[in-house]
Amino acid sequence: MASNIPNHAPSKLAMVPFVSVEHMMKLVNGIGVKQFLSELSVYVEEDFLRWELFDKAPRLATHSKEGVIELMPTSDGEVYGFKYVNGHPKNMSEGFQTVTAFGVLANVSTGYPMLLSEMTILTALRTAATSALAAKYLAPQGSRCMAMIGNGAQCEFQALAFKEILGINVFRLYDIDATATDKASRNLSGKGITIVKCKSSQEAVEGAQIITTCTADKQYATILTDNMVGTGVHINAIGGDCPGKTELHRDILLRSDIFVEYAPQTRIEGEIQKLPQDHAVTELWQVMTDSSEGRRTDNQITLFDSVGFAIEDFSALRYVRDQLAHTTNYIDLDMIADPDDPRDLFGMVMRAEDEWQATIC
Amino acid sequence: MASNIPNHAPSKLAMVPFVSVEHMMKLVNGIGVKQFLSELSVYVEEDFLRWELFDKAPRLATHSKEGVIELMPTSDGEVYGFKYVNGHPKNMSEGFQTVTAFGVLANVSTGYPMLLSEMTILTALRTAATSALAAKYLAPQGSRCMAMIGNGAQCEFQALAFKEILGINVFRLYDIDATATDKASRNLSGKGITIVKCKSSQEAVEGAQIITTCTADKQYATILTDNMVGTGVHINAIGGDCPGKTELHRDILLRSDIFVEYAPQTRIEGEIQKLPQDHAVTELWQVMTDSSEGRRTDNQITLFDSVGFAIEDFSALRYVRDQLAHTTNYIDLDMIADPDDPRDLFGMVMRAEDEWQATIC
Repeated sequence: MASNIPNHAPSKLAMVPFVSVEHMMKLVNGIGVKQFLSELSVYVEEDFLRWELFDKAPRLATHSKEGVIELMPTSDGEVYGFKYVNGHPKNMSEGFQTVTAFGVLANVSTGYPMLLSEMTILTALRTAATSALAAKYLAPQGSRCMAMIGNGAQCEFQALAFKEILGINVFRLYDIDATATDKASRNLSGKGITIVKCKSSQEAVEGAQIITTCTADKQYATILTDNMVGTGVHINAIGGDCPGKTELHRDILLRSDIFVEYAPQTRIEGEIQKLPQDHAVTELWQVMTDSSEGRRTDNQITLFDSVGFAIEDFSALRYVRDQLAHTTNYIDLDMIADPDDPRDLFGMVMRAEDEWQATIC
Repeated sequence: MASNIPNHAPSKLAMVPFVSVEHMMKLVNGIGVKQFLSELSVYVEEDFLRWELFDKAPRLATHSKEGVIELMPTSDGEVYGFKYVNGHPKNMSEGFQTVTAFGVLANVSTGYPMLLSEMTILTALRTAATSALAAKYLAPQGSRCMAMIGNGAQCEFQALAFKEILGINVFRLYDIDATATDKASRNLSGKGITIVKCKSSQEAVEGAQIITTCTADKQYATILTDNMVGTGVHINAIGGDCPGKTELHRDILLRSDIFVEYAPQTRIEGEIQKLPQDHAVTELWQVMTDSSEGRRTDNQITLFDSVGFAIEDFSALRYVRDQLAHTTNYIDLDMIADPDDPRDLFGMVMRAEDEWQATIC
């Protein structure tokens, strides 16, 4: 072919910026993971503060015996976003990721996609940023020590988000698999924080003002029993995030003031799936907008029953989109057919052939 | 940078084939548009024949005052697919497409995406292939002449599908905009068919055994009035495909045996939105599997009230996926994070930075 730029080259309108996994890693490292988490939490906070604007629906899940594939759409009226995400617990034993994700932002006014991005890494970042943001509103003042039970893929992101956004500087790690704790400890060395490797959950929670549970087993597990949770702590429960998967003993729930992202979804997927449908919970945005109280007393146990919600993904995609103006870490994809005459899609296809033939001759 | 292939180059597992608009045009022209339509109709037929296997749901629509953005997922238990599609009638006046689309296939067993494809062109092809497939079961035996009212983006695809799959060789075209008819007539010249340009819908339907309506106005339009529809014809109604957008006078519906893709969706979006919710309709797959009758008599008016359903998009994506083995018309996208140790997503991100630094030095 004589030319790489034939006459039918797609117009600017037809191009959608795509952030690959490699580009996302470069973007994160270029900005710095701590700054990325901190800036991302501001985007999440901005969107929680205008929560009522958003179209909200529980995610659209397609279940199979091996796992689930979900679509999570939302819109603020100007921008539409959705995430594709799977959850396949058996994947790890076959050399695949348990969770992979990608997402799209689109212009509500035209319906045109404006960003396609990997979201496996981005979801890990937004989950951590959201946890730390919730803790900023709910954790005891002056918290400095966090227990982290479950030291898998989410662990280091959580630690750095809590360091950056709340100033937590002591992390007490425990995992049933000591190699996971070693991995997290190694990855977090030299980050200006103190890591304490613990031999049990009980040991991990000693002296912690915040307890993060982030385990992966798909079952009704009891990562925390009632006696392990002292008065005044904030629990950041990440791992109980689908039907049949919880981490906390029911008695802990009954002693806690419970905060959630979006109650209709959390009642299906969160720790509170074990409670009656009318058990009182507060949505986090209500605390942020001062329409509900967050932490009232030093003795109160606050529980952020986090399952991950579409608006957080929207915030994360919005943040990535806003980086595109000053980064080269994306490529343009020719995703949208853009004929000169919108009624002449067929002609566009046929003429493309003629033009290729012409460039060959 | 010293190398374009750093050590952290993504594994095969992390790669998702992407068919761009340009690649789709090359694929269509390489196969030939008529053969593509014919082969695609076989894929649609295969999936309609195993209809009951599929997860089915009405599409998930996000409406705004300017238009709609929809996600259309489905799964056959082994493969999952969804389409993103927008519909913005006002776009054309601003130089944008009314409808753009892209789609994804994924492996149900792992949740991993296996194909990302443009679907603006592909949707036009699957719509035409499905129309012709329905007519194969419903139109009068020996049909040779089709009226086409509305000569926009879908027109030529319909004509070639009906030529290839049913042997229709006379097309009588009418559009309120004569330039659209001229455009379609020009695009269809030299394709071994007879084109008759008509000055009215009434003229277009004269002598036609099949009437295709494919207009774009978003309103309750009356493209066909009752007196224009003689006994025995098959009506292929494409343009009435969302709430508030229909093409046929209600009396025609009452004289017709009505066939639909998926009744719960068509009752919302199709011509039958004007009829009571319990008006008898037959799903097309039931005719294909002989569980319901199609055309019974020469005098019967059959109406395919087509709105487009997720399974047709699934078939189309499946067809494109099956072409990948013998085409170079795609690129691999690095869409899925694939760390060596699935629990070490953070380490993957951090080490990527080290490796880039190493390749720079």
